[in-house]
Amino acid sequence: MTEKAAHVTNLDPWLDAYAARAETLSVSEVRALFSVVSRPEVVSLAGGMPNVSALPNDVLQRSYEGMMAKRGALAMQYGGGQGDLTFRDQIRELMALEGIHSSVEDIVITTGSQHGLDLLGGLFLDAGDVVLAEGPSYVGALGIFRHYEAHVEHVYTDENGMSPEALEESIAALKRQGRKIKFLYLVPNFANPSGVTLSAERRPQIIEICKREHILILEDNPYGLLYFNEPVPNALRSMDENVVYLGSFSKILVPGFRVGYVLAPPAIRDKLVLANESAILCPTSFGQMMISEYLSTADWKGQIDTFRGVYRERKDAALSAMQEFLPKLETTRPDGGFYLWVTLPEGIDSKAMLPLAVKELVAYTPGTAFFGDGSGQKYLRICYSYPTPENIRVGIKRLATVINLQAELLETFTGKRS
Amino acid sequence: MTEKAAHVTNLDPWLDAYAARAETLSVSEVRALFSVVSRPEVVSLAGGMPNVSALPNDVLQRSYEGMMAKRGALAMQYGGGQGDLTFRDQIRELMALEGIHSSVEDIVITTGSQHGLDLLGGLFLDAGDVVLAEGPSYVGALGIFRHYEAHVEHVYTDENGMSPEALEESIAALKRQGRKIKFLYLVPNFANPSGVTLSAERRPQIIEICKREHILILEDNPYGLLYFNEPVPNALRSMDENVVYLGSFSKILVPGFRVGYVLAPPAIRDKLVLANESAILCPTSFGQMMISEYLSTADWKGQIDTFRGVYRERKDAALSAMQEFLPKLETTRPDGGFYLWVTLPEGIDSKAMLPLAVKELVAYTPGTAFFGDGSGQKYLRICYSYPTPENIRVGIKRLATVINLQAELLETFTGKRS
Repeated sequence: MTEKAAHVTNLDPWLDAYAARAETLSVSEVRALFSVVSRPEVVSLAGGMPNVSALPNDVLQRSYEGMMAKRGALAMQYGGGQGDLTFRDQIRELMALEGIHSSVEDIVITTGSQHGLDLLGGLFLDAGDVVLAEGPSYVGALGIFRHYEAHVEHVYTDENGMSPEALEESIAALKRQGRKIKFLYLVPNFANPSGVTLSAERRPQIIEICKREHILILEDNPYGLLYFNEPVPNALRSMDENVVYLGSFSKILVPGFRVGYVLAPPAIRDKLVLANESAILCPTSFGQMMISEYLSTADWKGQIDTFRGVYRERKDAALSAMQEFLPKLETTRPDGGFYLWVTLPEGIDSKAMLPLAVKELVAYTPGTAFFGDGSGQKYLRICYSYPTPENIRVGIKRLATVINLQAELLETFTGKRS
Repeated sequence: MTEKAAHVTNLDPWLDAYAARAETLSVSEVRALFSVVSRPEVVSLAGGMPNVSALPNDVLQRSYEGMMAKRGALAMQYGGGQGDLTFRDQIRELMALEGIHSSVEDIVITTGSQHGLDLLGGLFLDAGDVVLAEGPSYVGALGIFRHYEAHVEHVYTDENGMSPEALEESIAALKRQGRKIKFLYLVPNFANPSGVTLSAERRPQIIEICKREHILILEDNPYGLLYFNEPVPNALRSMDENVVYLGSFSKILVPGFRVGYVLAPPAIRDKLVLANESAILCPTSFGQMMISEYLSTADWKGQIDTFRGVYRERKDAALSAMQEFLPKLETTRPDGGFYLWVTLPEGIDSKAMLPLAVKELVAYTPGTAFFGDGSGQKYLRICYSYPTPENIRVGIKRLATVINLQAELLETFTGKRS
């Protein structure tokens, strides 16, 4: 053994012991931004954090007191792996707002919808399997699929969501290659990162294609209730009971409890409960019962209206700052949710530009985070949910300085006008 | 396709889509008992639930109020994937009670120590790998190892914990078979289910063997602070920084928050943080900050003393009932923790006997739950942590009725005296 090799071994004596899937873990671009976000002088348009300050403290206080008085001993204890029955029954009402009829038996409480997705990945994905997803798609889902050593095939997505024609073409091409498609993963409403919503027309078309091709649909819907004007079209799950639906309290209440849920057909639900028990024994009783008390005593629909108003104002601030400082750039115009998806001038690489932006005290998420194949350099995601409208304007102004400088440099080098 | 096959397909249309690891999920014996436990007329000696009623409500109330006043906005929000820095620093003090010197950088907060174990399983176990464990071993750990398609090799364990000689023999035999041993999993203090503690003499011997054989040690220690008289020997991690140590607040505070932690060498810790982020984004901020406030303002050492007193009294009730009603049976005599491990008369199968016991309104966990190979029929686990001393006595009296009847029947059939 050379000295160098000995040194490497010293760094990690267990290098030869890891499982194959451990190789799939890498520091994500979004994660690397966390340290940036915490510096107060930086306006972070990265993140993806909800604005929890729009929830009055005394609302949670009342939930805490009511819950402890009624079910304190249960809240402190272990519970069942599927989650609390009363709470699951309340979630039925929540899903009914998007047209979903469900049985309390088919709902599983998870550690945020993220863990629901992780458990589903574990149930379905063998190494080399294919997952179909929007292009771009949610970075946290891509990380899970990569962790299970699956391949993500992005399907062309426009301002009306995933294209049914492109979906058919992708499936046909993958079938010709003999690949095994395990499921289609979709964020149909105000998608992360694009902000687009799958149109009402396309929903039954997507379902029809997947039914015909025997492909399971995972419908991930954390943002659906946070529309600005019109409610979103009914959920895909409302049109097909075979769809697996994921929901979350992180955006319509707070993420700090880590409580989400999955609605699944019985056979999948059974496996999901067992996988949940294996991974964590049971979801947090305390978090479930806090939210359950909140749902039964607080004006939660009014609170969602408050959140809508807050996010609408911030979306308006973001779009008007884009108009003011970066009028030539193409951006999506979301009807709800947290995100703008911005197309950069030809030749600018959002990932390479990020350190320059941070130097100008603004942060965003590069488009590359949202593609499994490393593409997406010409896009960036702006998250307007967390900073104040004033700071959003300041942040986008700073971003314009960086982008315009990059465009000028490019022009100087190439002689082209962008 | 025959009609029957069509029917089966109707039951679960996704039967052909599951990953190989989904096959490993089965309804555990412990899980099946959950429904029994909830019937008030049954004395459950199964479970494994802590006695949360020994924690005064106003203690949590003060933690809630203090925490919300100081860090409410953070508690509601997403946090980092490794967990809160202040909280991790407090955990250093807790581990110092068992001789562990640690850096705050090497601690990762998990969704109970169960999820820590699940993440570690994911990092290390490929299908067919071997995990060494005590015999018997914790049912929840066995489930995780099975889920990652690993083989569990039980090492002979007596009243002083795992035998170092047996460990060496197991390793030698496995090496001869060309098997890949990934780690040794241990519950060194008041083990679940046996109640035994690894002696001070054996700890450095086990470490020495694993160091020589380059086998990672996972030390799972939820019960160590719940000793009845003498503190436990120092943790294995205090003797070797390469040991991965798992801790939990489920037994020394409450399980309802789902908060545990892992102390790991830097290279493993880095991977663990990434795996945690992939699976759940971040551990519960709310739960972490509640416990952090509790640790910084409440008399948590006094509270652990209270728990010790409660469990000591229940252990005494269990042992004296065993002496009164089942004097001939061999049982471990734990110095802490939640469990008695009982050896049944020759020929009685604890798994087959369980329905009869439930008919007599008493429940326990059959020994088979704690062996990866389906053995353990002649043992059963009694958990005395949750029922009152009076109910423990009633439960063991009922158990004696069932066991004595079984022994009589056996005698009649075989003519032997047990």
